[in-house]
Order: sequence, then C-alpha cells, then structure tokens
Amino acid sequence: MTAGRNWTGSRGRLQGGAAGASQNLPPLSPTFGFVVTFHTARAPDIQPRSATMLLLHRAVVLRLQQACRLKSVSSRIYIQACSTNDSFRPQYPSLTFSGDNSSTRGWKVMGTLLGVGAVLAYQDHRCRAAQESTRIYTKEEVSSHTSPETGIWVTLGSEVFDVTEFVDLHPGGPSKLMLAAGGPLEPFWALYAVHNQSHVRELLAQYKIGELNPEDKVAPTVETSDPYADDPIRHPALKVNSQRPFNAEPPPELLTENYITPNPIFFTRNHLPVPNLDPDTYRLHIVGAPGGQSLSLSLDDLHNFPKYEITVTLQCAGNRRSEMTQVKEVKGLEWRTGAISTARWAGARLCDVLAQAGHQLCETEAHVCFEGLDSDPTGTAYGASIPLARAMDPEAEVLLAYEMNGQPLPRDHGFPVRVVVPGVVGARHVKWLGRVSVQPEESYSHWQRRDYKGFSPSVDWDTVDFDSAPSIQELPVQSAITEPRDGETVESGEVTIKGYAWSGGGRAVIRVDVSLDGGLTWQVAKLDEEEQRPRKAWAWRLWQLQAPVPAGQKELNIVCKAVDDGYNVQPDTVAPIWNLRGVLSNAWHRVHVFVAP
Amino acid sequence: MTAGRNWTGSRGRLQGGAAGASQNLPPLSPTFGFVVTFHTARAPDIQPRSATMLLLHRAVVLRLQQACRLKSVSSRIYIQACSTNDSFRPQYPSLTFSGDNSSTRGWKVMGTLLGVGAVLAYQDHRCRAAQESTRIYTKEEVSSHTSPETGIWVTLGSEVFDVTEFVDLHPGGPSKLMLAAGGPLEPFWALYAVHNQSHVRELLAQYKIGELNPEDKVAPTVETSDPYADDPIRHPALKVNSQRPFNAEPPPELLTENYITPNPIFFTRNHLPVPNLDPDTYRLHIVGAPGGQSLSLSLDDLHNFPKYEITVTLQCAGNRRSEMTQVKEVKGLEWRTGAISTARWAGARLCDVLAQAGHQLCETEAHVCFEGLDSDPTGTAYGASIPLARAMDPEAEVLLAYEMNGQPLPRDHGFPVRVVVPGVVGARHVKWLGRVSVQPEESYSHWQRRDYKGFSPSVDWDTVDFDSAPSIQELPVQSAITEPRDGETVESGEVTIKGYAWSGGGRAVIRVDVSLDGGLTWQVAKLDEEEQRPRKAWAWRLWQLQAPVPAGQKELNIVCKAVDDGYNVQPDTVAPIWNLRGVLSNAWHRVHVFVAP
Repeated sequence: MTAGRNWTGSRGRLQGGAAGASQNLPPLSPTFGFVVTFHTARAPDIQPRSATMLLLHRAVVLRLQQACRLKSVSSRIYIQACSTNDSFRPQYPSLTFSGDNSSTRGWKVMGTLLGVGAVLAYQDHRCRAAQESTRIYTKEEVSSHTSPETGIWVTLGSEVFDVTEFVDLHPGGPSKLMLAAGGPLEPFWALYAVHNQSHVRELLAQYKIGELNPEDKVAPTVETSDPYADDPIRHPALKVNSQRPFNAEPPPELLTENYITPNPIFFTRNHLPVPNLDPDTYRLHIVGAPGGQSLSLSLDDLHNFPKYEITVTLQCAGNRRSEMTQVKEVKGLEWRTGAISTARWAGARLCDVLAQAGHQLCETEAHVCFEGLDSDPTGTAYGASIPLARAMDPEAEVLLAYEMNGQPLPRDHGFPVRVVVPGVVGARHVKWLGRVSVQPEESYSHWQRRDYKGFSPSVDWDTVDFDSAPSIQELPVQSAITEPRDGETVESGEVTIKGYAWSGGGRAVIRVDVSLDGGLTWQVAKLDEEEQRPRKAWAWRLWQLQAPVPAGQKELNIVCKAVDDGYNVQPDTVAPIWNLRGVLSNAWHRVHVFVAP
Repeated sequence: MTAGRNWTGSRGRLQGGAAGASQNLPPLSPTFGFVVTFHTARAPDIQPRSATMLLLHRAVVLRLQQACRLKSVSSRIYIQACSTNDSFRPQYPSLTFSGDNSSTRGWKVMGTLLGVGAVLAYQDHRCRAAQESTRIYTKEEVSSHTSPETGIWVTLGSEVFDVTEFVDLHPGGPSKLMLAAGGPLEPFWALYAVHNQSHVRELLAQYKIGELNPEDKVAPTVETSDPYADDPIRHPALKVNSQRPFNAEPPPELLTENYITPNPIFFTRNHLPVPNLDPDTYRLHIVGAPGGQSLSLSLDDLHNFPKYEITVTLQCAGNRRSEMTQVKEVKGLEWRTGAISTARWAGARLCDVLAQAGHQLCETEAHVCFEGLDSDPTGTAYGASIPLARAMDPEAEVLLAYEMNGQPLPRDHGFPVRVVVPGVVGARHVKWLGRVSVQPEESYSHWQRRDYKGFSPSVDWDTVDFDSAPSIQELPVQSAITEPRDGETVESGEVTIKGYAWSGGGRAVIRVDVSLDGGLTWQVAKLDEEEQRPRKAWAWRLWQLQAPVPAGQKELNIVCKAVDDGYNVQPDTVAPIWNLRGVLSNAWHRVHVFVAP
C-alpha cells in the first residue's frame, strides 16, 4: 500500500500538508499562493482578489447547504450535480452494460465532477493556464509525490499536474483522486468517462506544473526468462497482493461505486502465469460420455450454443483473510475486503454443452472436472470440479463464459473462455478453460483436494486432514464496509456508510444491519434496488446507511452484518472461525473511525 | 417444569436426599437400610451381609473398569450390556422403522438396562419381594414424590414403587428415570421396550411399597364446552409449554437418544385445537390449474400415487426462544432446545398431485397455499404457503405425508395428512391438510404474513413492518447440547457431551465444534454415520464428544457450534440476532456445569 493510499483525506490534514508542501516543492507558479489562500481563508494574509473568490464560493456553498442540508463541500456539490445535470449521461469508453440498469450509481458520481467543474469554473483559470511551466520531470519524480506532505502529482499524456489543492474538492471524494497520485490519470478517466469533457481538461490545466521527460515513454524491456513476463498490463488502481502470480483487488471505495465492477478493476486471483491464447486456434475439449462423443469446440462453436447472460458476483475464498491473520498467522495472500467483484457474464450453458457430449444427470454421485490452460513449470494445470448435479441443473445457470460486461474476457479473467458457477467460490470458476470431463470423484487437483477447505480453529498444519472436510462450493453470507475506511476521520453530524453484501447458493441478501457502537445497537441499511431472482440471487447487493453521529462522540466502531433469505447470519467474531488457510472469513466487518471535532 | 424434571442427578445430592427421605417417607421395608448401606459403603455402620454385597459389586466394577477404562458406574454397566448382550434386539411395541438403520443408538440404551438388571440380580431380591407392602396410595400422593428429598415414586399398573435408591443405578442415566417420577412407567417402557423383560419386573418388584387406590382408575370427566376437550392424550415425558393449544417438546436427554424421534415424544406445535377427522370421509381438495381439473382426494386416492419415504427433521422457528427471552422479552412460547425432532415420513409427492391437477412450473412467481382443517372459533383455518418452484421440484421432495415412522400420522401430527417440506421451517408443514391451491401471492394467513419472519434487533412492536421481511422458509444452521444439562454436576476425569445439529435447505452439517472454555478453544465432535445425500440432507446429525476435563477445573462453560456444507456457521451470541418474535434463535448453545470434586 502506498503512502498516498493511506491518506485519509481529512481537511485539517490537507491544510497542514499544503503549508508544509511549500517548503519541499519545486518553484511554484505565481498562482499557487492564491489557491492556498482560497483554502485557508481565515489566515491573516488574504489578498483582495482571493477574498472575492472566497465570498463567491461561500455563497454557492451556503445556497446548496440550505437546499440540501448536507455538510461537506463535496456532498453539497454532488447533490447539485445530480439535481441539475440530468442531461449529462456519458458512456464508459470501453464497457457495455447490456440489458442491465445497474450503472446509475456510477453515473451519479461521474455527474459529480461536472458539478465541481461548474463551480470551480468561477475561478479565473486563464490566469494559471497562461503561465504553464515547461519544467521537465521524470516518471520517478512524479511517483514520489503522493501525499499532502510531498505534494500530490498526476500526469495526463505528457503533462504533469500538481493537484494537491484540488484533492479535497474532488467531487467523487479525495480518496478516489488519491488512487491516481504519483501516476497517470488515464486508467481512472477510462473508468469514469465523465472526465472526458473539455471543461474538466481546462480545470486540470490550471494545475499544470511541467512535462514528463520524453525518454520515460520508452517501454521497459521484457525479461523473457520470466514465466510471468507475458502477463498483461494491469490497472494501477488495483492493490497488488502478489505480482507473480498476479493477485490484486480494487480499493474499497471504487469497489462499491458501481453495482457492476468495471473489468479493469475486477479482482484478479491467478494461481499461475497468464496464458496468451490465440482465439483462432483455441479449442475446448469436452470428454464425451460413454456412448456419447467427445467435442473439440472452437470459439465459434461455443457461440453457436444458445447464449445466456447473467450477473454474478465472484468471491475468492480468501476474501478478508487479512482479518484472520490478525488473530493468528495463516497461509495465504493478504486479501482485504476486495477479493469480490460483480460482472455480467455471457456464454453457453455448461448443461447444454455437456448434453451435446452425451452427458446426463445420473443417480450416482459424479463431478464435472475443469482444467485450465495455465500451468506450472512441471506442466501441471490449474484444476477444480463441481458436482454434476449442479452442472446439469439449468436452474443453476453454470456458464462457459466468453464475455464479461459485454467485452471478450480480459486475459486476466480467462480469455477466451472461463467457467462461471453462480453462487460458488471463485476457485471453481476455472479460467483459460481447456478441458472438461465427468468423473466419479472430485478433481484430483491440489486446489480441489488440498486447498480451499474449511477446518476447526483447533486444526493446525501438523494435524490437518484435508480429506476430512468437503471442498468449498457455496459460500456463506458475507458483507463488508467500504466507506468510511478504518482509521479515517468523518464529519460530525451525519456519517454515510457504504458496503456490499452477498451470499452463496443463490440466496438473496434480505437485510444488512449496521452498528455505530460496536454491535450494541443496530440500524437497518438501505439495500440497492437491483433485481433478486428467487433462488438465483447470484449477485451482491450494495447498501448504504446515512446515520446521525451521536453528539459528543469522538470515535465510532462501525460494524455491519448481513442476513440472507435462509436467515443465515455472519458470526460475531473472527477467532472462532479462524482456520489454517484463512478462508471463509465472514465475521462482522468492523471499521474504527474518528469524528472531526 | 416440575421439580422432578429440574433434578440434576448428581450422586452427592442423591445420597443426601436418601438420608433426608427417611424422615418423610411412609414406613420402610426392612431392606431399605440395606440398600442405603449399599450406596454409602464407607459409612461406619456396614453390616456383614452388606459388606459382602459391596465386595461383589466392587469386583464387578473393577473388572469392567479394567476392560473399558470408563469411570462412572452406569457407563461401566452400559458397556458391559452392549458388549455381552448382542442377542437382545427388542422391538418398539408400537413403532416400525421401515427401511432405516437409524435405531441402533436407541437399542444400545435399551440394552443398558439388561446390564444393570444382570448386575443387580446379584442382590437377593427375594428378600424384599417377600415383604411387599399392601399399603394404598392415591395418584396424588404418588405424584408428590418426585425428588430425592421426598422420595422418588413410580407406578406400573396398580403397583407403587419407591425407586429413590435405584435412580442413580439406572443404566440409561438417572435423568431418564426421573422423567417418570411421580407417575406411571408405562409410557416410557413403551418407548424403551427393553424394560419388557421378566427380570426387569423382578428387579422392580424389590422396590414395591404398595398399591394405587382403585378409585383412581376412573377416567377423568371431559369438559365438553372446552374446544380442546377432544385433544389427544399426550406422553408424560413431553415438557408442556402451552396446554391450549398444545405445545410441548421432548426433554433433551430423550431427544438425542434416537436418531429417529419416537412419535409419542416428537415435539408438538399446535396453533388451534386438534381436529378429530374420520379417515373414511376425509377428502383433500386440490384446486385445479386453469384448464386442469380440481381434485377431491380420499386417503385411498392419495395412497394410489407413488409412495415416497424420506427422513426429515422438523424444527419450529421458535426453537431455543427461551435463550432470546433472557436478552429481552419476546412474544412466543418458551421453547428450550426441544422444538426439533426427526421422523421418517411417507406419502405422495406434492409435485405428482399438483401435476394431476394440471399445475406446472411457470416462469412467473407463484405459491402453493395450504389450509389446515384446524380452525379457530371464527372458522379461520391455519394456513401457510411455499414457493411453487419448491413444490414442483422433484428434488425438493415435498410430501403429502400420511405416515410417520411407519404408522398413520398421530392426531397431534396431522392425521390423516400433513405437508412435509424438507429443509423448511415447521410452520409450512401444514397439518390436518384440507385444501391446496396455487396462487400468484403467498398465503394470506396470519402465520405466513404476520408471523414467522425475522427482523433486526432494532425493530420493536411499534416499528415493525411485517411486509418488509420475507417469510421464513429455509432455516439457518443450528445445534444444541442435550447432555449434560445446564447446572448439572459432571464427573471429573472425562465428560461426554451430546447434541444435535441441523441446517435448512438440504445443507448437510459437516462439522460440530465443542468448547469446554466458553469458546476460547475448540474440539471437533464425532458426528453420527447416518447417510447424508448431497443437497438433500434433510435430517439432523447427532454428535458427541468425549473430552478430558482439565485437571483442577471446578466448572465448565460448554459451547457448541455447527457448520453446514455452505460453510454457514452459527453466530456467537444471542443479542445481535434478537428479534421481537423470538424466532431463528441459533447462536452458539452454551451449558454451564460443575465438576464433581
């Protein structure tokens, strides 16, 4: 985690940081003083022109405050943007959300920036734009400016900007802009297309401090002996838990920004290097039933099966493992709350493909075994299995997916074909699918038999008997808080709490309870309005609660817990569900925050 | 709860009680002193003949102790009975367990008494039998002798016995004999047929103290204006939570004695008086689908559908409500851990009957509504519904059951026909079934819409919105400790803990963790070997753990928690799942016991 990502975005700290920054930063443009003055309006050295701007800004704010009765600047502007800019409905540049009304939440945030753009346009940006610096910076220099103390720099194309003063005004919240600190804006603007407006560029131009060193544009050389050298380029917002194999999660505040997780920040759980497969020569081998015929399917063949499209949340068994580690060491990647994401998947139904190979549901127990085309140096491929009963049940909607959010699968997510098993742990959604067979027993893969199983807290690596526990298939009910973040300082008055909730096996989340006092008293959060089909509630529900902060409270112990339609609940604490692999971490999620005085 | 049922069966208390009893009891037979001496062998007043008996007894015990390395007298005798009496395989007099190998556990306990019979036969029972008292007692007098302090009396036929001295030797455990204290043995001997052996009667004869007053045999007069007057006679072991309507649960130590709960002690949850229906004129009305035909089915008609037989656990939504009441008052019956039982049900599949009436699964949401033939004074019948998708799914195995454990349904359990919905809350298993219809919405019954729903702990009777929560269908994972009982004193050395575990929706219980220290450390209990079909694990698993009692421990906080195959777990504590109706009480079950010095 970078220093920038730890930054909590409280106004007090930003102001202090800005003051400190003037000692460390390169020579400032003449307007820098103006901008600082704008935010430290009560300081004695106010200049006449700044004071005018301040008054104008205050007038806008007061009007909004009356209208909306909200207290933070960005919230106020947010509301204005939403209520006055209905005509702004920009499109994601690279994502299609077919047949799904799930993106409205994202648009609201995007609309936000338009609002702040409008407000800030009151500032005479020509004054700064006219004095652009032509100073040259290296990428390395830029990447070292990621905090209020050092200044917060970003790049767009070859231009370098110091946005230290803008961060706190960012309508999507300071923390979202901070995700880009020290690097390029492009990957984030690609996610939030509202930025692609001329007046946003004009606004940004005011903060330009120079240009990138042209030599920095040369691509880094590739180390060809590295089996991971051919892995794809990833989105910089992802929080990397392991580079090789690549395992990364989106930051929480982006995770619940959209009901559908944009492909570039969908959590990635790889066990091996990413294969680079040619879609023209790709073949999926389906072992035929006795008396049936084996199939070797091209991508076109798969497309010839009826196409099904469903919204499914995937969760890694290790999601929230980092909380288990705090109880006692476990073996596994330190996932926080982000090893979960939701996409709209499309492909052929596994049951249709299996039927064509002559398979049918039988009375005796059987399993459908999947093999990936990713393999380790010994040639061992990733593998997993699910019960035949689930695979053959049309109601279980198991897919051989070739599309993710309307696009061909990204390489990190299994291009060209992966399995999607709704309601089941991510480990069974085998990527880069190469081979499917029906066996009397579960897959003999390490990941089916010696991993992804739950044990009693009393079991350690000396006593574990992997055969004694069933492989994880359906997952238990889960929820987590994504905003505010642990350690953050929240405004007094009212706090907005956001998060996600999901349960395995198609069980719908019916309620999320939130506590501000560590679990003594509870309030019911508002769930999103997304469709939940009975017994097929494959996707999460996003939730939020706006709650008054009890007067005089200096800190809050925020807790959430979800209930699914089998009235399953989350356990109170982590220790009693601790297990040596750190899987199934679904205790109440707890976030401790401070209240601004 | 009677005083007798509260009795904990510790040896120390029994001895003290026996001494005290001699002051209150009627004139004793000459052998009474002998029997007391037998149990207080270290007292200075040992008589020569008693000492001989003691030596004999000790020799038997020592041999068994060597063989079995067990520590309590009854356990020792138990083992002997099991290992030497394989030929004893008595039958329940009134139950048939067709096609189910589930009754072996019960037989073991029954075999037990044969063992103690053999050991105690060493005593010269002729001496006591020859001196039978002919004193006459009323039923009322007998019923007041239910504790070691008052003496423990039972009756068999017209004979009265003082079994105070035998209770602690009872091989099934003192607590089981205590269930009959103050009343007739017959209902219990009917459950545990091993008692129907001549030498058991000879043994009992030693404890005879008189005869019942012949006038007591007159049946009580029936109050015909009472709508409950025609309710059936119930088994005296049932712990009654409400007489009208009748609601009662088996005592925990009987509950887990058998995998299949004998019909007479199966928990009973009635909402209204029990209808008395004539099987010859009974008709079940199935409302036909549009274009189909309505059916009026006699019992014979139902028998003409293919017969299915499955083992299903039923649990009341209010099971363990009494623990919720301890947090804060709730509305509902004070069920302890016994509002759950398991039977082998047989009948026609609901999907077959519905299909004959022209119903089929449709894309739009629909519900199968059930109406009972029990009704309140206004004529309102009990009613409930389940989703059509479940009703029509052959894999869900919903039955219109006419048999329970091989017998016609007892009246308390819905004679002649009830619904059995595997994996679903008891409230939907409508008894005395009169009418089935398919509707676009759930049943409008009070019990579907204004009851049997879960809410946040923050919701009270002023704020509750019943429409905001789904009706309970599947139930969450559950477990409870049935032995030892709260407040009991256990032997030092080793403790045996028994209980049950179950989960809704056909999810199998895969593990039960037990803690002796309130949840700090855990041990894995041994689950029974009963068959668990994947996705159709409709019945509970009984479990037990034999664990050493940590040296020097004066008390134990025993806790259990179960895990199902969706890796759902039970919540740690009750308060955060408290709800105004006191349903869904599935927090860890906790029992506090003392350790004998």
